[in-house]
Amino acid sequence: MRLRNVKNAKEILENSPYFISEPTKYKGNYKELFENDNPIHIEIGAGKGQFLILMAQTYPDINFIGVEMKESILVRAVQKLEVTNIPNLKFMVWNAESLDRVFDYEISTIYLNFSDPWPKKKHHKRRLTAPSFLEVYDKLFLTTPIIIQKTDNIDLFISSIVNLCNHGYIIEEYSTDLEKEENIFNIATEYEEKFMKQGIKINYLKAVKKMI
Amino acid sequence: MRLRNVKNAKEILENSPYFISEPTKYKGNYKELFENDNPIHIEIGAGKGQFLILMAQTYPDINFIGVEMKESILVRAVQKLEVTNIPNLKFMVWNAESLDRVFDYEISTIYLNFSDPWPKKKHHKRRLTAPSFLEVYDKLFLTTPIIIQKTDNIDLFISSIVNLCNHGYIIEEYSTDLEKEENIFNIATEYEEKFMKQGIKINYLKAVKKMI
Repeated sequence: MRLRNVKNAKEILENSPYFISEPTKYKGNYKELFENDNPIHIEIGAGKGQFLILMAQTYPDINFIGVEMKESILVRAVQKLEVTNIPNLKFMVWNAESLDRVFDYEISTIYLNFSDPWPKKKHHKRRLTAPSFLEVYDKLFLTTPIIIQKTDNIDLFISSIVNLCNHGYIIEEYSTDLEKEENIFNIATEYEEKFMKQGIKINYLKAVKKMI
Repeated sequence: MRLRNVKNAKEILENSPYFISEPTKYKGNYKELFENDNPIHIEIGAGKGQFLILMAQTYPDINFIGVEMKESILVRAVQKLEVTNIPNLKFMVWNAESLDRVFDYEISTIYLNFSDPWPKKKHHKRRLTAPSFLEVYDKLFLTTPIIIQKTDNIDLFISSIVNLCNHGYIIEEYSTDLEKEENIFNIATEYEEKFMKQGIKINYLKAVKKMI
């Protein structure tokens, strides 16, 4: 996603009650941050935040943390929240590859929405469902690992299924045309709304890791 | 595949040395039929036989059995073989859903080439990688189960990966554009040659079942 740099992005983020400025400080202690024992779900690549803002409002008994690599994008999420009070929602700027430095076996679900498909073979290892990322995620989950992915990119989708499968997950639900599924409750991201208007099919999966 | 009925299909098959007319007779005893201990690979949906005829000639130390539901199609395979002598190749007319009535833990690889994609949801259970078929296949394998599939149909491909994954297989190799893969040796079927000429991409997977 390309956005013009927002001036003072850092300052806007630091001043927001939704922003976790020093995530390493909370490793193992997000219960204290949220002041409750509710399950924690994270979105990796939270972008401009629509998905997580709506999820947090829909599910007040779940704590949501949006992880985004770029300050300049995350600031858009935080700006939307100026007048709203959503106590079960936080955001942080962090890289997926070192999420085990900010979470310690304390989350229950990961959302991956419209992640970069990295189409070139030599870049496949950068996909958020590449084996090295799945190993990092193993260190984040408190309960049975659940990964929920949406993407318009069929190659990313297939490689995700294969990687998840080979890493011990089963695919509990999936669809190659999410809009047509009546039995799957769906909250759309900004991308997704755009894609659906264009008639682009959305692929969806829910993977659950078998515990031995 | 639709073909005009070949007159006397039954008679032509019965007279061919490549045809196993009473497969139940050989259950557990294919070694005797082939007169050796070589591994046995089967193709389910052998069609007009090109794939298996070429495979059998390429790999003389493997015994190949083509399983086809319809006499009228299989007769085309047998007719190609009139003047050739390929001792490691046999065909039978049988249904996939009851393959455990003709094989008893004695094969090592199953090939599924361009199987019917059964696009309607209510027909998905008829796909040759549907869970009920994978259960039947479990009773066929002597060694680590290996399933190799090729299809032009992306929905069949994805559902196969999911079903195999959920049935304990890992996906050892796969491609969504087989023709471009330099490291995968490939023998084309009749369908495949036609598809490739039309620029249709071929999906390929090799699944291996984890033994507990």
